[in-house]
Amino acid sequence: MKGKFISLEGGEGSGKTTAIHFIQQWLESNNIPYLMTREPGGTPLAEEIRQLVLSERNETVNDVTELLLVFAARAQHLAEKIQPALEEGTWVISDRFLDSTYVYQGKARGGNVEFLDQLADWVVGSNNPDATLLLDVPVELGLERVVQRQHQDRLDKESIEFHQKVREGFLERASADPQRIKIINASLSLDAVKVQIEKQLIALNHAWSGDV
Amino acid sequence: MKGKFISLEGGEGSGKTTAIHFIQQWLESNNIPYLMTREPGGTPLAEEIRQLVLSERNETVNDVTELLLVFAARAQHLAEKIQPALEEGTWVISDRFLDSTYVYQGKARGGNVEFLDQLADWVVGSNNPDATLLLDVPVELGLERVVQRQHQDRLDKESIEFHQKVREGFLERASADPQRIKIINASLSLDAVKVQIEKQLIALNHAWSGDV
Repeated sequence: MKGKFISLEGGEGSGKTTAIHFIQQWLESNNIPYLMTREPGGTPLAEEIRQLVLSERNETVNDVTELLLVFAARAQHLAEKIQPALEEGTWVISDRFLDSTYVYQGKARGGNVEFLDQLADWVVGSNNPDATLLLDVPVELGLERVVQRQHQDRLDKESIEFHQKVREGFLERASADPQRIKIINASLSLDAVKVQIEKQLIALNHAWSGDV
Repeated sequence: MKGKFISLEGGEGSGKTTAIHFIQQWLESNNIPYLMTREPGGTPLAEEIRQLVLSERNETVNDVTELLLVFAARAQHLAEKIQPALEEGTWVISDRFLDSTYVYQGKARGGNVEFLDQLADWVVGSNNPDATLLLDVPVELGLERVVQRQHQDRLDKESIEFHQKVREGFLERASADPQRIKIINASLSLDAVKVQIEKQLIALNHAWSGDV
């Protein structure tokens, strides 16, 4: 039986790293074989592409270039890592996936959604996640958390309006596909966030075992 | 007035480097402002993408990944280097351009031509070269020349059949678009090759000046 494919989405400072650690513990305690990965990245070549996308540079990065780099990394990630793992029954947990591209390169940067749809169709096709956990926090709270980090990348340094569009973009996608995208209220306490995530994991695992 | 955009195409060992030197001398002696560039590459970011595409690696490079990387570099090259130069009246000479993608990633690797057409449409649009000089040599002669070089990259090391498809691919494109793609018989002597190239440059320069 194929593994489940779960993506984690959310803006800056939404607590994805903490959520991932919790998911990892949950999978281990339930004896589910899993693979943690991330986008852009996930294979050596895709991680090199990630560096190109996220590093600060003097050269203006053309929007189409950024979009194509993100999909180049994704094509590699799917073919070389995600699909083989799912085929052998391993669950795959990805820190970001296609929704981030629609939100960051599409909604927030105003990228051409028709072109994005074509790329999604060619590169991802039917290989969308079985479930997406959207960690939602108000922009101000998210950025407050990010400021406390040492390292900030090119995207962290965008304007408040940019991050506002990111949040709206994610919520729009969740309301357009509520079956797949589950909104986690990530401004609550850590324990309350874990309870929401665990509920989704249990539902997925039951669906997987054929119980639901 | 906009500059002219010329691309050079041809398989391995077709003598592109020598042809480019000759074109450079010709442009200088005719006082034409020019920019020599190449693909994949042409800007710092695009050159970094070139390294990803051409370097040898243990990881299998997915065909879709390679195609998207090539177009990511091209989008950057067009926006940041080629278009600004043409706008200010500078001629742009590119060592390889879109025809190479159709031939290497499309014809030779059997890539999806419909997807390639969509990418070409989005990324290149109407910014095709004004003229393309196709340096044509029999595969055996080309490879003989390449073997004498010290450095060989991932594409140089493909099979004879691969290089045969590359040659056929270029000739097919030339016969489909003879107005733009001019075949240069590159198995002749250096002087005879130069005569053919000069003839094309003169025609382009006259067309440019409005004489033809």
